[in-house]
Amino acid sequence: MPTAVKSVLPVVLLGCGGVGRYLLRHIVSCRPLHANQGVAIRVVGVADSSSLLVADDVNSSGLDDALLTHLCAAKSAGSPLSSLLGQGNYQLFRNPEARSKVIDAATMLGRTTGLVLVDCSATYDTVNLMKDAVGHGCCIVLANKKPLTGAYEDFQKLVSNFRQIRFESTVGAGLPVIASVTRIVASGDPISRIVGSLSDPRDDLGGMDVARKALILARLLGQQISMDNINVESLYPSELGPDAVSTEDFLESGLEQLDRSMEERVKAASSRGNVLRYVCEIGSKRCQVGLKELPKDSVLGRLRGSDNVVEIYSRCYKSSPLVIQGAGAGNDTTAAGVLADIMDLQDLFQKPA
Amino acid sequence: MPTAVKSVLPVVLLGCGGVGRYLLRHIVSCRPLHANQGVAIRVVGVADSSSLLVADDVNSSGLDDALLTHLCAAKSAGSPLSSLLGQGNYQLFRNPEARSKVIDAATMLGRTTGLVLVDCSATYDTVNLMKDAVGHGCCIVLANKKPLTGAYEDFQKLVSNFRQIRFESTVGAGLPVIASVTRIVASGDPISRIVGSLSDPRDDLGGMDVARKALILARLLGQQISMDNINVESLYPSELGPDAVSTEDFLESGLEQLDRSMEERVKAASSRGNVLRYVCEIGSKRCQVGLKELPKDSVLGRLRGSDNVVEIYSRCYKSSPLVIQGAGAGNDTTAAGVLADIMDLQDLFQKPA
Repeated sequence: MPTAVKSVLPVVLLGCGGVGRYLLRHIVSCRPLHANQGVAIRVVGVADSSSLLVADDVNSSGLDDALLTHLCAAKSAGSPLSSLLGQGNYQLFRNPEARSKVIDAATMLGRTTGLVLVDCSATYDTVNLMKDAVGHGCCIVLANKKPLTGAYEDFQKLVSNFRQIRFESTVGAGLPVIASVTRIVASGDPISRIVGSLSDPRDDLGGMDVARKALILARLLGQQISMDNINVESLYPSELGPDAVSTEDFLESGLEQLDRSMEERVKAASSRGNVLRYVCEIGSKRCQVGLKELPKDSVLGRLRGSDNVVEIYSRCYKSSPLVIQGAGAGNDTTAAGVLADIMDLQDLFQKPA
Repeated sequence: MPTAVKSVLPVVLLGCGGVGRYLLRHIVSCRPLHANQGVAIRVVGVADSSSLLVADDVNSSGLDDALLTHLCAAKSAGSPLSSLLGQGNYQLFRNPEARSKVIDAATMLGRTTGLVLVDCSATYDTVNLMKDAVGHGCCIVLANKKPLTGAYEDFQKLVSNFRQIRFESTVGAGLPVIASVTRIVASGDPISRIVGSLSDPRDDLGGMDVARKALILARLLGQQISMDNINVESLYPSELGPDAVSTEDFLESGLEQLDRSMEERVKAASSRGNVLRYVCEIGSKRCQVGLKELPKDSVLGRLRGSDNVVEIYSRCYKSSPLVIQGAGAGNDTTAAGVLADIMDLQDLFQKPA
């Protein structure tokens, strides 16, 4: 006997490049699994940076799976959404109209069936849309760090109904970091410190990506701070920064310079039985990001490859922290984290029995 | 401005010894925190092995915090619940009447306000009560492994409405193991293997406690198996088991015998650069518990002290697993895990706006 559908989640997706595209694929391939759990995800709209594809009647139907699959293939080949024309029961809107159509859907669905607005873009530009959606009673799920790392007031508005927001993938891709912090906090176990290696430094020599993750964790722990308040140690000096030298010059001579000074620091640490790790550290009143000398055989010291690791210290995890470790990047893994977040909202979308 | 109460969760607690007593303390001390989140936990009944204390009117009120605190102190001093007589707006029932009064509450509240039946006991005897509660639409939260590790049909009934059951504390105390497995499964990322060190072998030389945890994980991954199907390596041979020698003889001469044979295995492993760890291993079609020789510098090989560790392998965590590590026992930590589970059910208890 097929399981009755208990929850229908209408979704509008902002950003259908890497992570968003994988998310759509996961949603389509998980249909039988989710049906088994009594859940149906209805993708009513998908936007890229210039256009929005939206179902003709967002109240009763979504974009069909054939279209979503076709859309993924088009984006994968580098085509914009607007290349998909006249192929089904949907409409295409271009900016700036596209944005107002998203608000229309949020307004209409937010107070009736509910709506999950999912941000898999990588821009600050979605923040007002996300805030509007929250104002209309919508749920939001973010893989995009930027709306949560701008003005503190924006963060506050976005998390104002904490049960209606999920943002696991902003910190550790699919790693259950936010979920664990939320569980620990809900159980009245006060978190005193979080230490993490949350990025592959090769992609983030300036440390800004890690700093954003650190800021999200710090704000989650109640710190009312902004990026300006975080002490970020860049892996290059300002005289080698993008404002001072060209990328070519940086790669040609700058990197060599960096390597020499880094080699000395590594040697010095090694002579003390330590290694260097680029970590973020969030206490009750501070938040910093930079290189730290750590014992070779500590959890962070032993870290290899592209794994992320987070240590959480609290009353229950005092002498020995709660450690979460694993792949913390990649489109597939990040999209899986976003989908888990969407599924975690299903109790808010239960159909009356 | 105080936060409006959005969710009221009526709770009946079975078992108020170690974990249950800590849970009641946590619930009382977390009142301001939970009020801030718009959540109120209403403890309408508490049972120990012989009696039930229940609020006069379970529909509208719970046992007050002064009584709960008094109850914790009494249990801590070794007194039974029945020693608390005539001190407030509650009634005391003894077995077997106590059991039927729990069913009464479950029947009455299950279909109206809802009820969370929490099992912090350590007995098989609660399984029928828990199944009845599920039948009446109640939510259940378990720290007690036994109802989930008996007949497969019982497990199936208990998890039949998967959104209404939580059992994090049965496997890793407060560690987010079940929550992580559930997230990964919901995201369509198939789990191929779980390997874990889930107990302090000093408390569990026979391996049955670890086997129960392994069984819960295996059933969660879809294996329709029972304890009989698990290959459990005991740390003592049957000729030193409780049926063959007395505890005194075991401690006097048996332990020494064990130590000698173990020393040889440890040495042999060490000569290969390995260490022995008592682990459970769950694949797609198997489940075993026993000593395993592992590389010294693997996550499990490096494990020290009383930490638990779980490695989860899936499509997203293939070459390098998702690792969760930390304290996996203790009344405080286990009770925190139970409270996090209760809080995680809050969306099912939302008051109409």
